[in-house]
Amino acid sequence: AVKAALQELDAPQIIDNWGEFAPEHHLVILTLLPASEAAEVFSHLEEDEQTALLEALPRWRVKELLGELYLDDLTDTLQAVEEEDPELAEEIKAQLDPETRAEVEELSEYEEDEAGGLMTSEYIALRDSMSVEEVLRFLRRAAPDAEQVYYLYVVDAAERLEGVVSLRDLIVADPKTRVREIMNPDVKYVRTDTDQEVVARMMADYNFQALPVVDENGVLSGIITIDDVVDVIEEEATEDIYRLGAVEAPELVYSRSTVWELWSARVRWLVVLIVGGMFSSTILEGFEATLSAVTALTFYLTILLGAGGNTGNQSSTLIVRALATGDVRGRDWWRILFKELGVGLLLGLTLAAVLAVKVVADGHAEILPVLALSLATLMTVTNIVGALLPIGIKKLGLDPALISNPLIATLSDLTGLLIYLSVARMLLQI
Amino acid sequence: AVKAALQELDAPQIIDNWGEFAPEHHLVILTLLPASEAAEVFSHLEEDEQTALLEALPRWRVKELLGELYLDDLTDTLQAVEEEDPELAEEIKAQLDPETRAEVEELSEYEEDEAGGLMTSEYIALRDSMSVEEVLRFLRRAAPDAEQVYYLYVVDAAERLEGVVSLRDLIVADPKTRVREIMNPDVKYVRTDTDQEVVARMMADYNFQALPVVDENGVLSGIITIDDVVDVIEEEATEDIYRLGAVEAPELVYSRSTVWELWSARVRWLVVLIVGGMFSSTILEGFEATLSAVTALTFYLTILLGAGGNTGNQSSTLIVRALATGDVRGRDWWRILFKELGVGLLLGLTLAAVLAVKVVADGHAEILPVLALSLATLMTVTNIVGALLPIGIKKLGLDPALISNPLIATLSDLTGLLIYLSVARMLLQI
Ligand SMILES: [Mg+2]
Ligand SMILES: [Mg+2]
Ligand SMILES: [Mg+2]
Ligand SMILES: [Mg+2]
Ligand SMILES: [Mg+2]
Ligand SMILES: [Mg+2]
Ligand SMILES: [Mg+2]
Ligand SMILES: [Mg+2]
Ligand SMILES: [Mg+2]
Ligand SMILES: [Mg+2]
Ligand SMILES: [Mg+2]
Ligand SMILES: [Mg+2]
Ligand SMILES: [Mg+2]
Repeated sequence: AVKAALQELDAPQIIDNWGEFAPEHHLVILTLLPASEAAEVFSHLEEDEQTALLEALPRWRVKELLGELYLDDLTDTLQAVEEEDPELAEEIKAQLDPETRAEVEELSEYEEDEAGGLMTSEYIALRDSMSVEEVLRFLRRAAPDAEQVYYLYVVDAAERLEGVVSLRDLIVADPKTRVREIMNPDVKYVRTDTDQEVVARMMADYNFQALPVVDENGVLSGIITIDDVVDVIEEEATEDIYRLGAVEAPELVYSRSTVWELWSARVRWLVVLIVGGMFSSTILEGFEATLSAVTALTFYLTILLGAGGNTGNQSSTLIVRALATGDVRGRDWWRILFKELGVGLLLGLTLAAVLAVKVVADGHAEILPVLALSLATLMTVTNIVGALLPIGIKKLGLDPALISNPLIATLSDLTGLLIYLSVARMLLQI
Repeated sequence: AVKAALQELDAPQIIDNWGEFAPEHHLVILTLLPASEAAEVFSHLEEDEQTALLEALPRWRVKELLGELYLDDLTDTLQAVEEEDPELAEEIKAQLDPETRAEVEELSEYEEDEAGGLMTSEYIALRDSMSVEEVLRFLRRAAPDAEQVYYLYVVDAAERLEGVVSLRDLIVADPKTRVREIMNPDVKYVRTDTDQEVVARMMADYNFQALPVVDENGVLSGIITIDDVVDVIEEEATEDIYRLGAVEAPELVYSRSTVWELWSARVRWLVVLIVGGMFSSTILEGFEATLSAVTALTFYLTILLGAGGNTGNQSSTLIVRALATGDVRGRDWWRILFKELGVGLLLGLTLAAVLAVKVVADGHAEILPVLALSLATLMTVTNIVGALLPIGIKKLGLDPALISNPLIATLSDLTGLLIYLSVARMLLQI
C-alpha cells in the first residue's frame, strides 16, 4: 500500500512533505522508492538525519543510494557521516569502487565554504583538436555520468583549462569543425580556495549555469553547478538574517532544533548584550540628582532610546545588505557618512516634531527643548554609527552582519542615556 | 583610447566597476562596446538609469542594443521606460519589428512579481511525433534565438504542454527515436499567475534550470530561466532583510538612492513606532509614585527593556526566516509556542542569574526579586510574541517580515514597563 501511494508522488513532493510522514515511514520510503528518486530525496535531508538513516538502512540499499548521488553531494554526505559516526563512514568508503573513493577523498580535502567544497569532478573535458562530430560521439558515452553537459571545458595536454564550448554551439556548428575554432578561450574560472560568496556573486552576475574550478597551476579540478550556488545564496541570506537578529548558528534549521540547541544559539549574544548594557545602570545612577529634580525626564526615556535604536537598525540594515550584494564597498565610507548625516538629521527633526506634540499635550513643555535636542542628536549619531560599524567590522575581516539589530539597540541605549541626561543637566542647569 | 581600454574588459567586469566610471563615460561605453556586450551591461543597470541612457543614446544604437536583449529583459526595460518617459517608450516600440512588438506587449500584461512577468517567449517547442534527428536539425536553425535550449518542451496541436525532453537525452538517443519515446510526460510547470516566490522555491528544490509556464488552458506561454530566479531569490532576501530592519522599500538600491529617497523609505516606520511607543510615557507617569519611592528601579529600566527586545528579535528572526524557506508553516504554531515557551524560560532564568550578580554588587539587593521575576517573565513573553506574531500576520495574508526588529523592540518596551512596574508595585507594596 505504501508502495502504491509512493508511486503517486515524485521526489520533490516527498521532500516537501517529509516532515509530515511519521519517522518510521522515512526508512520505508527510502527503501521502496526507485534508487534514483530515493537519492534525490536523500540529498535534500539535513546531515544529521542522513547519518541516522544510513545507520538504519540495509547495506545493499545504502550502496545503491549513494551510487546515485553526484560526487559533490556524496562527498558532503560522507563528510557529515564522518563527523557523527566515523566507523560507519569508513565502512561505507570501503564499499565504494576505488576510483570513486579516490575522487571523494580528493574532494573532501577542500573547505566546505570554498569553491573546492562546492565542485564536482563529474564534468566533461575536451581537447581543442577534437572535431564537433567526435565530441558528440564522445558525449553519447560520457553524458549519462556527468552532472552537467551543457558547458564543456577544453583543456591542454597538462589538463590546464583553456576554453569553454557550449552544447548549443556544438549543435549549431558544422560536424567537421574543430573545437578550437568554436571555443571561447576567454573562459571565466575560480580557484579551489575562492570563497563561496565570491563564487555565488560571480555566477549570479554572469548568469552562468556552471563555472570551472582550477588549482594553483591552472589545472581544471572540477565544476560548480548553479543548483549548488542557489543553495549558497539561500544559506548566506539565512546566515545574514540570523546574525542581524543576533542568532549565531548559521546552519541552524528551526524545525529540527531542540530547545537546548536554540538556547545555545541565542544565549551568548543575550549575555554579551546584557553585560554591555549594564553600563546603563551606572549612567542612570550617576545622573540620579538630575532625574529626581525633574521626574518628567524619566517618562520620555523609553521613547527616546527606542527611536535611537530604531534609526540605527535601519541604517545598519541598509549597509549590511548593500555590502553583501556588492552595491557599496568599504572605500565608499565617506560618501555614506555624508549621506547618513543628512538622512539622520532629517529623520531626527521629523521625529522631534512628532514628539513635540505629545510632550506639549502632556503638559511638560518645560523639557521640550531637552527632548527635541537630544532626540535629533541621538538619531543623527545612531544613524551614522549604524551605517559605519558594518563597514568598520568588514575592514577587520569580519562579517558586517555581526552588527546586529540588538547590538545597535544596546549601543544606542548607552549613547542615548549619555546624550539625554547631559543635555538635560546642561539646559536645565541641574 | 577608451575603445582600446574597453577591449581589455568584458561585460561583467564593466558591470562590476560601473559606479567607478564617470557618468559621462557611461554613454561612451555603451556606444563603443560590441552590441551584444553593451546589451549585457545594459540589462544589469537599474531601471531609472536605463531610461536615462535610452534617452541619451543615438537612435540606431538604441535599436541595436534592444535587439540583443532577450524578450523578458526587453519587456522589463520597456515597462520601466513606460513609467518614466511614456513618449520614448512609444517611439521605441514603434521601431520594433511587429512580431517582437506583439510579444513584448503580451509579456507586459503580466504582473512583474508573477511567473508571467519572469518568463520569456523565446523557448523551443517540439511536437512528440518529431524524431531526434529532426529535432537536432530544427535546433540548428532555432537555437541562436532561444534564451535556453537545454530543456525543450513538447506541445500538442493546441499548444498544450505535454512533456519535456533534455538536450542531454537527445544527444544520447538514437537519431531515429521519436520525441514521445524519450520525453518525460510528468513535466512540472507553473501558471502565469503563480507568485515569483513559489517559482523560486520550486526551481531551487527541484534543481531546475528552466521551468515552463502555462495559461489557464494549459497552453505553453513561456519559460522561466534559472538566472532570473537567482535574481528573485536575492530580491526576496533583500526585501526580508529590509523589512526586518523596518525599511519599507523593497527595490531600494542604496548607492543610487538620494537622501530624500532614503528619508522617505524610513520615516514612515519611525513615526509609527514612536507614536506607538508614546504609550510608554503614559505608563511611566502612571507609576510615578512607585518610581519615586524606590529610585533604584529606574536604574535597571534600560537593561530590562533591552533584554526583552533582544529576546523577541531573536525568536521573530528565526520564525520569519523559517517561514520564508518553508521550514515551518502556519499550522505548526502550537509546536512553536511550546518550544519557545521552553527556550524563553531558560533564557530568562540564565539572564536573571547574570543580572543578579550586577544588582547585588551595586548594593540594590532589595529589588533583586522584582528584577529577576520581571526579567524572566518579560523574556518569556517577548520570546513567544516574537515567534507567534510573524505566523499571525502570515495568516492575515501579509508578509511575516513586516514584524521587524524595531517593531518587536517597541512592543517589548511597552510590555516590559507594564510587567516591571506592576511586579514592583506588588512585591514592594507601593
Ligand atoms: Mg562539498
Ligand atoms: Mg543574473
Ligand atoms: Mg553540483
Ligand atoms: Mg548538488
Ligand atoms: Mg555572509
Ligand atoms: Mg559565509
Ligand atoms: Mg518581466
Ligand atoms: Mg537545490
Ligand atoms: Mg530569462
Ligand atoms: Mg534575464
Ligand atoms: Mg518575501
Ligand atoms: Mg515579495
Ligand atoms: Mg530598546
